[in-house]
Amino acid sequence: MTLTSSPRTQSADAVQLFELLARFAAFGATPTGGVTRLCASPEDGMARALFKEEAEASGASVRTDAVGNQFAHFSLAVDERAPLVMMGSHLDSQNRGGRFDGTLGVAVALRVGAELMAQRENGTVFTADFVAVNWTNEEGARYRPSLLGSGVYAGTLTVDYALSRKDDNGILLESALAEIGGLGSDTPPPLPACYLELHVEQGSVLEDARASIGAVGRNWGAIKIDVRFEGEQAHTGPTRMELRRDALLGAAYAIAGVRDVAARWPGLVHTSVARILVEPNSANVVPSSVVIAAEIRAGDNAVLREAGKVAEAMLAEAASRAKVRYEIITKTVRKVRHLPEAPIALVHQCAGAIGLHSLDMDTVAGHDAISLLGHCPVGLAFVPSAGGITHNEAEDTAPKDVEAGLKLCTLAAHRLCRAGGDPEAALSLRWED
Amino acid sequence: MTLTSSPRTQSADAVQLFELLARFAAFGATPTGGVTRLCASPEDGMARALFKEEAEASGASVRTDAVGNQFAHFSLAVDERAPLVMMGSHLDSQNRGGRFDGTLGVAVALRVGAELMAQRENGTVFTADFVAVNWTNEEGARYRPSLLGSGVYAGTLTVDYALSRKDDNGILLESALAEIGGLGSDTPPPLPACYLELHVEQGSVLEDARASIGAVGRNWGAIKIDVRFEGEQAHTGPTRMELRRDALLGAAYAIAGVRDVAARWPGLVHTSVARILVEPNSANVVPSSVVIAAEIRAGDNAVLREAGKVAEAMLAEAASRAKVRYEIITKTVRKVRHLPEAPIALVHQCAGAIGLHSLDMDTVAGHDAISLLGHCPVGLAFVPSAGGITHNEAEDTAPKDVEAGLKLCTLAAHRLCRAGGDPEAALSLRWED
Repeated sequence: MTLTSSPRTQSADAVQLFELLARFAAFGATPTGGVTRLCASPEDGMARALFKEEAEASGASVRTDAVGNQFAHFSLAVDERAPLVMMGSHLDSQNRGGRFDGTLGVAVALRVGAELMAQRENGTVFTADFVAVNWTNEEGARYRPSLLGSGVYAGTLTVDYALSRKDDNGILLESALAEIGGLGSDTPPPLPACYLELHVEQGSVLEDARASIGAVGRNWGAIKIDVRFEGEQAHTGPTRMELRRDALLGAAYAIAGVRDVAARWPGLVHTSVARILVEPNSANVVPSSVVIAAEIRAGDNAVLREAGKVAEAMLAEAASRAKVRYEIITKTVRKVRHLPEAPIALVHQCAGAIGLHSLDMDTVAGHDAISLLGHCPVGLAFVPSAGGITHNEAEDTAPKDVEAGLKLCTLAAHRLCRAGGDPEAALSLRWED
Repeated sequence: MTLTSSPRTQSADAVQLFELLARFAAFGATPTGGVTRLCASPEDGMARALFKEEAEASGASVRTDAVGNQFAHFSLAVDERAPLVMMGSHLDSQNRGGRFDGTLGVAVALRVGAELMAQRENGTVFTADFVAVNWTNEEGARYRPSLLGSGVYAGTLTVDYALSRKDDNGILLESALAEIGGLGSDTPPPLPACYLELHVEQGSVLEDARASIGAVGRNWGAIKIDVRFEGEQAHTGPTRMELRRDALLGAAYAIAGVRDVAARWPGLVHTSVARILVEPNSANVVPSSVVIAAEIRAGDNAVLREAGKVAEAMLAEAASRAKVRYEIITKTVRKVRHLPEAPIALVHQCAGAIGLHSLDMDTVAGHDAISLLGHCPVGLAFVPSAGGITHNEAEDTAPKDVEAGLKLCTLAAHRLCRAGGDPEAALSLRWED
């Protein structure tokens, strides 16, 4: 174990990471410390350029695939066809989002790659190569759905589907990526022997428990429903109230109703309507068409199913009460899923080895790691978010927690790459190795 | 009376009007028979060019003022400083609005001007000149508030205020008008001795009563409140429900609450929320800021005041229930107003003279005529809207009703311009004059 032997070395590693994070945070920086770095925006283009520059400076070769996913390949093993260990996350952000959301996982992966290269130089023998990845459009803020890049890599979405997504201005993802030079033609690397993602928690479970590391064992399921309420344009003045078919009124009843679904299962079900599109959205015209994006999340499949049914009944009731029609445009169901045990155990093992308090926990939010779940061994580790604040400019993670995440990932990657990438083998690797 | 002597002549007049209406309807025509001709759009520019072309072809000189109002001056009287009789309305439309809303009044005014010029050629002696007008941004669809052009002309709004309005893309009215060549530098004509506007009813009172002409005696009052709900951005997934400050939820409660206000005074109060702006409007982010435009209308000032109070209480309650802050950004109160008697009597008199069934009625909607109320004698006449459908592509007015409107306006303008523009004098003018 060379990497944890000297406190001084760790501290220098952390400083390099902080510097890298600060450089990423500058692209799309908001006045109050957040970032607006929407997928395939000019700011995203600058972040992508820095990813490439940083990776190459550490000796990696960078490939960009057809949907803009960036893979920084660090050759560690002698065997050219060695298995891969992959770490990463995303550099896109929400509108006025946080500077650690996604970026932390990417920056840590780049620094881990650099550290492993240094270890190889110093004689460590690796049996797997390391890949740091930046996935395209994780957030779903500019292009929907979210998790586009990792979904394509996992094979659950097609390249054509991803590139033909349009933003609210009708701009294709393909065009926006081409505009920033983010469209590649490289073949992505094969599925890794293990994918491990570090992310900020976006909740306050770790903080409340005074823990530094979360080992995610379960991903909450989610039902996402886009529903259109269809009324009739009319003048908001003379048109008699009883003749109005107000699509926005239907949507308002629905938003209130979907909130009530969560109240039936306190703490067990989360619901939200956070996006609404209104036609014609003129103060004097009764809206004719309103689309809302409703979501229902739960950690138990039976509860999720039941809550979804109640939510759909709420939508129907809302439409009926407002005397408008409604239509479910899309409905996607992501079941509750459990993450494999070996990577969880590896996270706990590594956290313990460096004196960090780790906790088993759930993720309610989707992450790129969840896209890859079922396709390869997947691990997902969290570090705390101050106050649980997330998707907000005020999102923050304390330096000590950032450093904890770096140390955890460096050790876990070291052990995985020494064990041919296999998390089971990494778990049982002798520590003196 | 030359103008109503021959049915054949009337019919030819009507055909010319139908042709003109069809030409206007082509600018921004929607596939299902409506128009999208937002203020200062390229389509509006084409309609403005036709206004000028048509007016000049009929012998009028056209002035365009600093906010783009177009005035077609038909010189009828010998005296160069003769008083004015003004008729008109607006050529801008709602998004997917109707082809008669506003345009009918402008097209009729242009045809009336042409007819009066012909009458002058045939020896009729006029003691007032006639002006056909196209007011800028009546609808308030692209630029808010509505009634901008007529408000500036009446002196209740300044030119600077009007030109500095921005649309939802941040484009100044000044820039948009300049872009289509709609920005003028002419001094607008002085206030007329009488302003008379023909408009489609936008309701079904006339149709239900089988009447052809409405003489508007009262304008409903309106309270318009723009209110912002302020929450906190957060992730729609992991953030615990009880910690959320969801601005859209507050707005939804408010929309439902404002609708309930109307239910307390059935038929007497109309309410609406038809416009909503959401930040950041991303499916995964609890909205931090939502602005809605609420309006409450009533035909009685005491009822209006009381309904306004109830509505404001509803807004406060909605914010409190959603645990968000709220702030009233703007609140405008337009009191119930009565129109002067002489123009109303003139409308009834002229309608009766040509065998049209006319009805006293209210206008719930604002109109440019209301902007001028109190500044000069003002009349407002309605023709039926089929099925009361309005601010909708399906808005329609039957040809016989369009023709009735033309006949009414031609006769009223003839009498006004023979009577020095004074509606009292026009009323007592001998018919053989």
